[in-house]
Amino acid sequence: MNLPKSVTICEVGPRDGLQNEKKILSVEEKIELIDKISEAGYRVIEVGSFVSPKAVPQMATTDEVFKRITKRENIEYRALVANLKGVERAIECGCKKVKLNVSASREHNLRNLNMTPEESVGKFKECVALAKANGIEVSGSISMPFGSPWDYKIPKDDVKKIVEAYLNVGIVEISLSDAAGMAVPSQVYEMCSEFKKTFPEVKWILHFHNTRGAGLANVFAGMLAGVTWFDASFGGLGGCPFVPGAEGNIASEDVIHMLHEMNIDTGVDLDKAIEIAKSARDMVGHDLPSCILKAGKNSDLLKRWLS
Amino acid sequence: MNLPKSVTICEVGPRDGLQNEKKILSVEEKIELIDKISEAGYRVIEVGSFVSPKAVPQMATTDEVFKRITKRENIEYRALVANLKGVERAIECGCKKVKLNVSASREHNLRNLNMTPEESVGKFKECVALAKANGIEVSGSISMPFGSPWDYKIPKDDVKKIVEAYLNVGIVEISLSDAAGMAVPSQVYEMCSEFKKTFPEVKWILHFHNTRGAGLANVFAGMLAGVTWFDASFGGLGGCPFVPGAEGNIASEDVIHMLHEMNIDTGVDLDKAIEIAKSARDMVGHDLPSCILKAGKNSDLLKRWLS
Repeated sequence: MNLPKSVTICEVGPRDGLQNEKKILSVEEKIELIDKISEAGYRVIEVGSFVSPKAVPQMATTDEVFKRITKRENIEYRALVANLKGVERAIECGCKKVKLNVSASREHNLRNLNMTPEESVGKFKECVALAKANGIEVSGSISMPFGSPWDYKIPKDDVKKIVEAYLNVGIVEISLSDAAGMAVPSQVYEMCSEFKKTFPEVKWILHFHNTRGAGLANVFAGMLAGVTWFDASFGGLGGCPFVPGAEGNIASEDVIHMLHEMNIDTGVDLDKAIEIAKSARDMVGHDLPSCILKAGKNSDLLKRWLS
Repeated sequence: MNLPKSVTICEVGPRDGLQNEKKILSVEEKIELIDKISEAGYRVIEVGSFVSPKAVPQMATTDEVFKRITKRENIEYRALVANLKGVERAIECGCKKVKLNVSASREHNLRNLNMTPEESVGKFKECVALAKANGIEVSGSISMPFGSPWDYKIPKDDVKKIVEAYLNVGIVEISLSDAAGMAVPSQVYEMCSEFKKTFPEVKWILHFHNTRGAGLANVFAGMLAGVTWFDASFGGLGGCPFVPGAEGNIASEDVIHMLHEMNIDTGVDLDKAIEIAKSARDMVGHDLPSCILKAGKNSDLLKRWLS
């Protein structure tokens, strides 16, 4: 069983976790969360998104949040952008890493934008140019590569075309984002193994939701295929507008607990990650799907028995 | 990636799912559930347990339930027993398969019974003799082989000694039961791979709880090690008294959904499995942790979009 010795968990809670929450957190609350995430040992944090505040009201304060968080060395503070305007806001805030996104669904893209997904990616060229001219790194995300709410199955070749389109505009860090939680582990293993071989220059990030319970199974499958970067969200916060009521992102503390029990290092202090999930739960004011928040760590049981 | 073409899901909801529920279901409700499980295509059903009704009130009616369910050919109707008295009740009901259980925790066994787990298994000899003399098959279960609430880690050699003790009393079907949900996939893969090699005569069954979110990851790891029998419970019902508030058994419909999406056959009609989980939810009167009950199947999304 070929597993990595260490894995990087990218904490996307401040962006993907919060973006669909009805209750808008204050700038101070977001800063508190993000500063705690920095202190917990995470090496990548998705702080927010520079997108239309009308479309995503929760993210309207990303600029201020970005400016006021305590930035530590060796931590990447990332933000999602949709267009040139987003890159301009990133420049203005001193953000050094932005992420673009396209859906893998040709059907969806053609109906909505009259373009294929790879044509959409081609249009990102000017975003990449502006970002790079300002010393900003750019990564690209592909939503629903393992299945989409519009198409059910997505042909692997369709995803490959999008990867090629990203490479064509100079993006070599690519996230495969199963935002509707449709991936299964054999598929993750096969796609990642093949893509790693076909596109050896790419740094792959996997982004899973636990919508149908297979989130950690997919992380395990991704690791077996050699992927070592995974997004996760505190408490499992975050959903998918197409699957109302379902669970959201894989919970950071659940992933980290599993990895540590497998002797895979993450650099994150699990107890601090659990405290962050509790803070987030208090701030949003409802229960979160995290298992570790309910059950505690494996090692906690011993303490209960001995006390 | 070496995965099986087909897998057997043993529906343990009527026993492990229900046994800790406060609301006692009527005999008629239990029969309704079990008959639906037979109709859905499951090949193994754990109907209940022949144990002390004082200890487990929910299981007090197992005898009557067992007699009145519609028994189909090619389905194994299994029950848990703890001692000779249990085997006698099984004989009286016409039950043809019983399961014995011991905990892998030496510490726990020594404190409670002043015996090692393998000494406990040795005492099962007379149960096996009586069962076999009456044409009843016997299987053995080992609780907490991947970690226990009393010891945290369980040495693999301790588990091996219990397997040997089961073999010594003539039991060759053995279930590894992670009832406190402490297993992680690398450990499942390693233990199952090794045990399959060391004990080639054993038919292995894996029983996972989703207490810490790794339930389906552990099923995937078990399959990679060549195991093809897995317990699961409708709706993910069932918990662990040592981990209050935590999730229970892996949900049958979540496992079956994942397997079918991986093109692994189970013989079970997933839609019927989902209906069973809904019936169970109505009967116990509270929400269940199942993901598929909340999110629907991958293929449902397409229907929503087209409608």
